[in-house]
Amino acid sequence: MPESHQTNEQARNEVRAALEQQRQGFYNRDAAAVAELYSGDAKISDLAPPLIRKFDEAGLALWLSSWDGPVEVTGDDISITIDGDLAVCFGHVHVRTRTQEGEDASWWMRTTICLRREIDAWKIFHEHESVPFYMDGSFKAALDLLPQDYDQ
Amino acid sequence: MPESHQTNEQARNEVRAALEQQRQGFYNRDAAAVAELYSGDAKISDLAPPLIRKFDEAGLALWLSSWDGPVEVTGDDISITIDGDLAVCFGHVHVRTRTQEGEDASWWMRTTICLRREIDAWKIFHEHESVPFYMDGSFKAALDLLPQDYDQ
Repeated sequence: MPESHQTNEQARNEVRAALEQQRQGFYNRDAAAVAELYSGDAKISDLAPPLIRKFDEAGLALWLSSWDGPVEVTGDDISITIDGDLAVCFGHVHVRTRTQEGEDASWWMRTTICLRREIDAWKIFHEHESVPFYMDGSFKAALDLLPQDYDQ
Repeated sequence: MPESHQTNEQARNEVRAALEQQRQGFYNRDAAAVAELYSGDAKISDLAPPLIRKFDEAGLALWLSSWDGPVEVTGDDISITIDGDLAVCFGHVHVRTRTQEGEDASWWMRTTICLRREIDAWKIFHEHESVPFYMDGSFKAALDLLPQDYDQ
């Protein structure tokens, strides 16, 4: 079914473009550009508490401005699955930026981004970002993991 | 379109049944029953490192047997979104069990479960479970959060 195949490719390109807009928004520390990507009822599970919250543009703007320079997010192995108007993207991404004290800050994290096609655009309705924690009694967030662990 | 609506309801019931089978499998500490739910290429982001791994039935069996009694997972507010052969389920769940030392163990965590319809059944191809961590300098996993934080 070539037509359906084409539609699927188009959807995939649109979803990739949405992820790219998110990445650019982080790089430019432009919370408004990132906010455009979220549906009105989007629910986020973030690195920081609470468990789940609504998308919070003001909170994102504050977080982005807490760094001294671009927040660079890279992740070239993101898996994208689409059917109809629903898309699931997941993988691990590397975040790299600089603190106000001029120190490099970087970590790998897991990201799951779920989008649905609304009238004119794909919108994120659920996003889940996390690092695991060490079960060695320390309960410390594992911010030092590298992606070579992927296929264990 | 009543027929399409019925199909959607049927898909929703099938996805709910898959989540229920997972829950029952945890309660009965039956790793094989849980394993049936996963596609061959399923990728899991779990509470423990690594960042992402394949589904690991032996590891799950070991973890389930490390507790003294049922592992009870409850979460009645799981959001389910389906289109065609793709389903996204997310929310927070409460895990409750007992240690080998006879102590109660329980925590709330976030869960995102993505399923696709294969030839004869819905299969989980991606699962992401986590707790956030405290950004107060301790970097401790936030295992003490309660779901009243949901709508912050």
